[in-house]
Amino acid sequence: MSKIERVGISLEPELLAKFDALIEKQGYPNRSEAVRDLIRARLEQEYLADTSADAVAAILLIYDHHLTGLTAKLTHLQHSHLLHIITTTHVHLDHHNCLEVIILKGKVKEIQSLADRMTSLKGVELSRVNIMSAVGA
Amino acid sequence: MSKIERVGISLEPELLAKFDALIEKQGYPNRSEAVRDLIRARLEQEYLADTSADAVAAILLIYDHHLTGLTAKLTHLQHSHLLHIITTTHVHLDHHNCLEVIILKGKVKEIQSLADRMTSLKGVELSRVNIMSAVGA
Amino acid sequence: MSKIERVGISLEPELLAKFDALIEKQGYPNRSEAVRDLIRARLEQEYLADTSADAVAAILLIYDHHLTGLTAKLTHLQHSHLLHIITTTHVHLDHHNCLEVIILKGKVKEIQSLADRMTSLKGVELSRVNIMSAVGA
Amino acid sequence: MSKIERVGISLEPELLAKFDALIEKQGYPNRSEAVRDLIRARLEQEYLADTSADAVAAILLIYDHHLTGLTAKLTHLQHSHLLHIITTTHVHLDHHNCLEVIILKGKVKEIQSLADRMTSLKGVELSRVNIMSAVGA
Repeated sequence: MSKIERVGISLEPELLAKFDALIEKQGYPNRSEAVRDLIRARLEQEYLADTSADAVAAILLIYDHHLTGLTAKLTHLQHSHLLHIITTTHVHLDHHNCLEVIILKGKVKEIQSLADRMTSLKGVELSRVNIMSAVGA
Repeated sequence: MSKIERVGISLEPELLAKFDALIEKQGYPNRSEAVRDLIRARLEQEYLADTSADAVAAILLIYDHHLTGLTAKLTHLQHSHLLHIITTTHVHLDHHNCLEVIILKGKVKEIQSLADRMTSLKGVELSRVNIMSAVGA
Repeated sequence: MSKIERVGISLEPELLAKFDALIEKQGYPNRSEAVRDLIRARLEQEYLADTSADAVAAILLIYDHHLTGLTAKLTHLQHSHLLHIITTTHVHLDHHNCLEVIILKGKVKEIQSLADRMTSLKGVELSRVNIMSAVGA
Repeated sequence: MSKIERVGISLEPELLAKFDALIEKQGYPNRSEAVRDLIRARLEQEYLADTSADAVAAILLIYDHHLTGLTAKLTHLQHSHLLHIITTTHVHLDHHNCLEVIILKGKVKEIQSLADRMTSLKGVELSRVNIMSAVGA
């Protein structure tokens, strides 16, 4: 994006050697990229602790699509919250189960509330909520 | 799915009262559904501790799509692992950032390895890996 | 504690069989105890989301006790927060490292703030914060 | 410990400014100490993923000490595992509840197994397991 700053970090040789081995295994091109990822993850954790912060989210639901009325209830819920649903993706996993991924934007607490409502529906067997800061950094 | 069994659970009145208040707030239709969700989540945690277990996953990446070559690298990685990519969804978040959701199936450790490789690419600013048991229950 | 209530829970036979296998492996004497633990853990998670809630905590620190001044700084921090330190336990792990466990009571956010201050001290190499609801149920 | 190495990290000015604000709030004396803590935490997470790794742990239990036989069972369990119990600390929280902190060394999977056995005892209301790499770094 903008111009780059360079800072010096001092650390013990043993710690550096272990870190180098890990990031090579993970495939990082260099230390800077790996340290930036650690910093971004830590900052995001802090940012999202504020439940009124703006965020982007992906709600994942695994459910039995044979259950009559479930799809209608899920759609109804998506329209009843102060959230901007960007897109949904639907995948058939097997004869019974499907995975639905709902990508949306909104306040952290609104997202959490919608996810609670969806998770608690009869027929929804597993769910995951991913809340990420609205901008990357 | 199949026929239903009924079991009796004994618990302190105070604990029951607090549980009832929580599940009403979350929107559960009854206690059975709420207890089933707790049990499913606990079983899944156990199942996924085995890194050779079959799983379905959603890898979420937020990255700057202006970075030349990044999309090609992401596509290349998806083809170089022993994984079945089911679908990907791409969302434009703002001028710089986009969110990509990759839904796939495979062994837990293969999924984790692919996610590490993607996360470590220059330009990928945030990532999340959701690994779920391949079948709901 | 007080008298016990009994509630009926209905669930799929497959789910019940998997749950029974897991709790036998963990050593639970019966299903009720296992379900109570799931409920308590879920309620606690909810309770502690309120940062002004009263809690009991254990802060764990691994540090190099050769570093001059560190012990004095840790003691000073314990006296500068609105927290009730109940007890501390000190264990020598090896020539360099020791583990200190600080058990205390206070508001969730005060505990988190003290833990941050301790973790950030030079010489403190690893830390863990366990915050639990002040009463068991 | 040993002599210190110095490495250069390049990052965007916005990311650096946010990181500086966070670590000042947490009380870090400088960036190096904060980056070292992020690296140590990441390395430890990797190390502990191997369940046969040597670790030090603190198991925390909140239980009702009025329950006859519980203390004897907890003591019995501590003697029946291939683990080295270093020390235990017992704190009276209120009329009913007490907190016990058990500090021990052993393989990750042995520690996890002992913690499961303790958690599943009737009367143990909450538990936490902290597993840390045996040496700081």
